[in-house]
Amino acid sequence: MLRTHNCGELRITDTDKNVTLCGWVQYLRDKGGVTFLALRDRYGLTQIIAQDSKSSPDIIQKLQSTGREFVIKITGKVVERSAKNPKMPTGDIEIYAENVEILNPSKVPPFLIEDETDGGDELRMKYRYLDLRRNTVRQNLELRHKMNRFTREYLDNLGFIDVETPVLIKSTPEGARDFVVPSRMNKGEFYALPQSPQTFKQILMVAGFDKYYQIVKCFRDEDLRADRQPEFTQIDCEMSFITQEDILDTFEGLVKHLFKNVKDIDLPKVPRMTYADAMQNYGSDKPDTRFDMKFVEITALAQGKNFGIFDQAELIVGICAKGASEYTRKQLDELTEFVKRPQIGAKGLVYVQFKTDGTIKSSIDKFFSQEDLQKIGEKMGAEKGDLILILSGEANKTRKQLNELRLEMGTRLGLRDKNTFSALWVMDFPLLEYGEEEKRYFAMHHPFTAPKPEDEHLLDTNPGEVRANAYDMVINGVEVGGGSIRIYQRPLQEKMLGLLGFSPEEAKAQFGFLMEAFEFGAPPHGGIAFGFDRLCSIFGGADSIRDFIAFPKNNAGRDVMIDSPSPIADAQLNELSILVKK
Amino acid sequence: MLRTHNCGELRITDTDKNVTLCGWVQYLRDKGGVTFLALRDRYGLTQIIAQDSKSSPDIIQKLQSTGREFVIKITGKVVERSAKNPKMPTGDIEIYAENVEILNPSKVPPFLIEDETDGGDELRMKYRYLDLRRNTVRQNLELRHKMNRFTREYLDNLGFIDVETPVLIKSTPEGARDFVVPSRMNKGEFYALPQSPQTFKQILMVAGFDKYYQIVKCFRDEDLRADRQPEFTQIDCEMSFITQEDILDTFEGLVKHLFKNVKDIDLPKVPRMTYADAMQNYGSDKPDTRFDMKFVEITALAQGKNFGIFDQAELIVGICAKGASEYTRKQLDELTEFVKRPQIGAKGLVYVQFKTDGTIKSSIDKFFSQEDLQKIGEKMGAEKGDLILILSGEANKTRKQLNELRLEMGTRLGLRDKNTFSALWVMDFPLLEYGEEEKRYFAMHHPFTAPKPEDEHLLDTNPGEVRANAYDMVINGVEVGGGSIRIYQRPLQEKMLGLLGFSPEEAKAQFGFLMEAFEFGAPPHGGIAFGFDRLCSIFGGADSIRDFIAFPKNNAGRDVMIDSPSPIADAQLNELSILVKK
Repeated sequence: MLRTHNCGELRITDTDKNVTLCGWVQYLRDKGGVTFLALRDRYGLTQIIAQDSKSSPDIIQKLQSTGREFVIKITGKVVERSAKNPKMPTGDIEIYAENVEILNPSKVPPFLIEDETDGGDELRMKYRYLDLRRNTVRQNLELRHKMNRFTREYLDNLGFIDVETPVLIKSTPEGARDFVVPSRMNKGEFYALPQSPQTFKQILMVAGFDKYYQIVKCFRDEDLRADRQPEFTQIDCEMSFITQEDILDTFEGLVKHLFKNVKDIDLPKVPRMTYADAMQNYGSDKPDTRFDMKFVEITALAQGKNFGIFDQAELIVGICAKGASEYTRKQLDELTEFVKRPQIGAKGLVYVQFKTDGTIKSSIDKFFSQEDLQKIGEKMGAEKGDLILILSGEANKTRKQLNELRLEMGTRLGLRDKNTFSALWVMDFPLLEYGEEEKRYFAMHHPFTAPKPEDEHLLDTNPGEVRANAYDMVINGVEVGGGSIRIYQRPLQEKMLGLLGFSPEEAKAQFGFLMEAFEFGAPPHGGIAFGFDRLCSIFGGADSIRDFIAFPKNNAGRDVMIDSPSPIADAQLNELSILVKK
Repeated sequence: MLRTHNCGELRITDTDKNVTLCGWVQYLRDKGGVTFLALRDRYGLTQIIAQDSKSSPDIIQKLQSTGREFVIKITGKVVERSAKNPKMPTGDIEIYAENVEILNPSKVPPFLIEDETDGGDELRMKYRYLDLRRNTVRQNLELRHKMNRFTREYLDNLGFIDVETPVLIKSTPEGARDFVVPSRMNKGEFYALPQSPQTFKQILMVAGFDKYYQIVKCFRDEDLRADRQPEFTQIDCEMSFITQEDILDTFEGLVKHLFKNVKDIDLPKVPRMTYADAMQNYGSDKPDTRFDMKFVEITALAQGKNFGIFDQAELIVGICAKGASEYTRKQLDELTEFVKRPQIGAKGLVYVQFKTDGTIKSSIDKFFSQEDLQKIGEKMGAEKGDLILILSGEANKTRKQLNELRLEMGTRLGLRDKNTFSALWVMDFPLLEYGEEEKRYFAMHHPFTAPKPEDEHLLDTNPGEVRANAYDMVINGVEVGGGSIRIYQRPLQEKMLGLLGFSPEEAKAQFGFLMEAFEFGAPPHGGIAFGFDRLCSIFGGADSIRDFIAFPKNNAGRDVMIDSPSPIADAQLNELSILVKK
């Protein structure tokens, strides 16, 4: 090694040692005859000094010829600092420079390499190597490494086997859009990049692998949002001869193991909620359970008071925001504007303030007596100091709108602390969703999810009512993982694909290999996949997944650092037997 | 779980327990009133029995209605076997069946699910899920999992950080052919799949990550051979502030750690050999050092004897095959035919037999006296019982031919045992190779490899003579890994790309981001990558990598199980703005 120590490890007990350090110049200061330089590497920061009165002019000159982000090698003696810095792990010592070598100079970086930077998003992405030098970004990737490591530790110890499934696979029409790869050797044919290793992990179960996992890149050619990337990583798992309960136990265990080892948090037993309850009580299949504020339905109670909007509503439902009774007119107007935004689409918002002085004030005083409001308050558990917010209209829409309002109130009331973690299993999802536009059913999870045995008879009569043994893990209102018990019998798989609009020929062309595999002794099986980028960002207390990915793409799917995608040579296109449309 | 135990864990101490097992029917036998069934899962095999005299007719009937590869669930009591089978870990016990449930029937598999199968390659690949049920294939993948696990353990403990680099990157003209991915959002532009994360890992060093690793899929669109796959896996590593010695130490340590933990073998210190010595002594940059049989050059000694072929040769070189003096005429003819095959291309083979009776017999007796032959024998260390084999001609060609003959002799003499492991570092590779056809230099390793500092001055005058700090690890004659110290300064990188025929514009378009990164404080760095599929196959004692990959592709790049690649819909092509050429 060019160094004897890294920049984070020297302590007072190392005093008088001769050491060599390598790293980047964080800053350089000249204070009346003393030159200070902070040397940085992945492991920390160490102060280097030289004094006009004692050091050779050559050393001083060399130090002063450096600048931010120069790479240098310093040899010198560890000395105790006179002015110690308790905030730095190495703050008790400094290195008295005796030799300085500039390994590589640096141009002035286009933004500050500090925890708080002045670089905008595009600039940080173009110079990602400089952005990655910042502690905050590096720590995100160190967290990711830890998450990876402890995930493997947990699963390895349970006898799961990591099997790599192929990346060059086959395009399937169901689900999101595939990225495709033209085959040179098979003219006119294409591979697809996997959206998940779903069919391969099921094949591994048919092959008797019993317990499989993989931390694996997956791909989806979708229009991008802030928290979506064309390539993303999954913790992908599958088990045989299990019930749903075994999967929930095993992977609740994984999440607990990660919280314990990565964050030293003892996650309590993860509560469970049916999809139906989640929709009814939170208007969402991924409720943020860091705070309560459950929906309370007051349709019967609130109708018949000549308030037309309520009287015509399918559902009248509200939340009780504790301690918000003294919201100003302006704040209440903001909430009304919030729910009326086109993304949410409510027509209006009804509020009832249970003031701290005991009075009740509402936006519907014209129609509701104090006694009426009191009754509503009782039903909703409102006390002095609370604010009730009520929406009404078509049931499903209203619940979705109230979900947004509930989250907004949670944020406003400081109930969504990023360092508080609340995990939840949401279960018993419907097997199918009806697409009004396409006039057909879609798989809520994917085409391989098994119906609950007790609902299987409904497949012929009322497919929309069939529930699945499917489950999502939700942490702080974010779906971090999901899975299901799978179909493992050919006739049921054929029926399912039929319901999804596949002709028998299409079903065979796409999934024939899987259905054929089911005929050669497929075991009952099920699994789960966690969104690894998302899971890391939740653990890191961040909203976006982008800073937990070393080299993310922007919203146009571009890597601005390497400037990709890019045109390719005509010779390459020729070899692949494809043309670009003009 | 549907089971209480797996099929590999019950022992005599479990006698009288009531257990439930799930698995596949390995075989079913009816021996005069006793039904035997062997139940198999990933963990082992357990014998199930039922007796006409004691068991219910229903149980017997159910057992007998099963067949090979049926998936069943058996509940029963563990009993001691009267005829124990010491070859099976569960061979002391059997399960007396009390309940039998058929979880899934199976069609008759198209080949035997046994260690030795009757299935041909194509059939095994089409029904890969059945092939993977065979112990031998499953064990290969279990070995691979272990290799992965212990690689991570070693590198994690040394502070390496696993960083995922992108799969959708940019096509580069240097090196092998890229797979490309049309971008829907950037019309007419393409991503490429990485042949290695080379530039990204160097960027991570510039970013200060210090020690990086990744076990990562890479892609190469090349014509395939038995031991090549379009997608393959690398253990990819890079370190900063190191010398070549640090890399050799660190990764010799990795290989030792793997041998110790995966195979319980203490690998001795790995010897080192220069490229020049390897070529001179073995005619190969990846010599199989499980056996000696070094080349001995006898040009001076063997010329001037009026044997025209020798007299006109640039090089006369031989090997001494210990104990092969009594090879028959037929065997010697076979060897001559071997070297004359077009793949090898020698014109002929000269042999000298130092017979056990003390006589010397050669194919050049006409020109060489016994004394001459004796001298050659002495030079080559031949003793009574040895066979000398000599080739001559143009130096480089002759060495390559003799390398093939040496390996053939090693095989014939049983010196290449798959359970013996001999590792070697080959070092000091030339930086550049001259392409006679293209009339330009090519990077022997890749364009980012640094010249040896002491040879750097030759770049301008004699590039072909420049050696690199590049190294390969060779095990049993197979290159399992290779790496180099990298260029980290822009001017040198520009010069290197210039030597490789890049115009300044091309260099900037392809690698501008890397050269720009070098200007913002790039540390000295270097690394290595191991071919993970190949490393696993060596550890598994196999020649082909295919059985160490769960779902390999055939030589036409096809996955015959899922039938991929395949045509895609016109709508997909339209969205991607590409056409297939008719």
